[in-house]
Amino acid sequence: MPTMESETRHCIEQCLRCYRTCFESAMTHCLERGGEHVETQHFRLMMACVEMCRSSAHILLTRSSLYRPVCRACAEICEQCSHSCDRIGDMQECADACRSCAESCEELSRT
Amino acid sequence: MPTMESETRHCIEQCLRCYRTCFESAMTHCLERGGEHVETQHFRLMMACVEMCRSSAHILLTRSSLYRPVCRACAEICEQCSHSCDRIGDMQECADACRSCAESCEELSRT
Amino acid sequence: MPTMESETRHCIEQCLRCYRTCFESAMTHCLERGGEHVETQHFRLMMACVEMCRSSAHILLTRSSLYRPVCRACAEICEQCSHSCDRIGDMQECADACRSCAESCEELSRT
Amino acid sequence: MPTMESETRHCIEQCLRCYRTCFESAMTHCLERGGEHVETQHFRLMMACVEMCRSSAHILLTRSSLYRPVCRACAEICEQCSHSCDRIGDMQECADACRSCAESCEELSRT
Repeated sequence: MPTMESETRHCIEQCLRCYRTCFESAMTHCLERGGEHVETQHFRLMMACVEMCRSSAHILLTRSSLYRPVCRACAEICEQCSHSCDRIGDMQECADACRSCAESCEELSRT
Repeated sequence: MPTMESETRHCIEQCLRCYRTCFESAMTHCLERGGEHVETQHFRLMMACVEMCRSSAHILLTRSSLYRPVCRACAEICEQCSHSCDRIGDMQECADACRSCAESCEELSRT
Repeated sequence: MPTMESETRHCIEQCLRCYRTCFESAMTHCLERGGEHVETQHFRLMMACVEMCRSSAHILLTRSSLYRPVCRACAEICEQCSHSCDRIGDMQECADACRSCAESCEELSRT
Repeated sequence: MPTMESETRHCIEQCLRCYRTCFESAMTHCLERGGEHVETQHFRLMMACVEMCRSSAHILLTRSSLYRPVCRACAEICEQCSHSCDRIGDMQECADACRSCAESCEELSRT
């Protein structure tokens, strides 16, 4: 049975992985492809997701006990971002990272 | 009657003000005073609040429609941080900035 | 003659203003216009400038004495970003914010 | 012979590792020990180093060509932070992460 600490570490990993994957994809894949990949709604959501994941990892690293609302917000944004990636298509890596991160944040928010 | 846009701008201002006030206080007032001001629980909460406010401003600047869970999380952390500042004492400026930010985020999360 | 402290405060203001102006423009004006405004090289530089300004303000807020290399880097990126905005056109507000920030960072890096 | 791309990836890894190690140490080890570990000059430098590493990773992820001044600034701050960690003592993990990151940033700044 995982200790609280190992779940926190796992969630930090997922948040940082999602942050990197989505930001790198936005800056390379999306900008290079153009078209739907830089559509306003999708790209804004990608940037919001990148920031929320980066920030959630940071707040988890503080070890403050106030992490639950942060994880809930992160789970919600990552889930929406995964749907947006599915809709645009050709964004599998981001969509997967978003889903893993959403799941991990959702779990941690319930501890 | 304020438009959605003016409420968003007001909230961005409050988030950035709270971010600056709390981070600057932590790096000057708290570190210089020491003692209770660098007590683990209080200082971690200050750092979590600083990050959440900074990040909420950023996500509001994206104009993504997914701002509500972010504002809710920010309101909750700012409120807790204001109580921690009241408990430590001699942190009036932070406590006030946290309360204004919490109120503004709470309102925006209901739009 | 301005004290060091007032120059630091002025530079923090300029960095945060440039951060907000460029990020908001990227998320609204650039994404909505599309075309050259989301050209890979320009948009990446905008994002690098946004991050460097945001981070320089943060490091200045720490009051660490190690701010000079940070201000130098910020001045260089802001100057390049102002040129990119001039080249794209229709980005006057960003270009101006970048130039003011570059000047302020350059000055502070020499104190 | 490493390609530019593999050096960039290595540097991103080092920056994120140094960011995590130093921020986590500051929030756990330093706050819990207190005393010299929360001494103003040391703690401010830790926070500046944390931010610069986090931000350098972000700017490298943009793939903007303007990364050199950022890497130079990061190398300088990490080196100073490693010395501060050596001076305080009992901060070996941070000191090592800072030195690896400084070396990697220094190399990348010369490409």
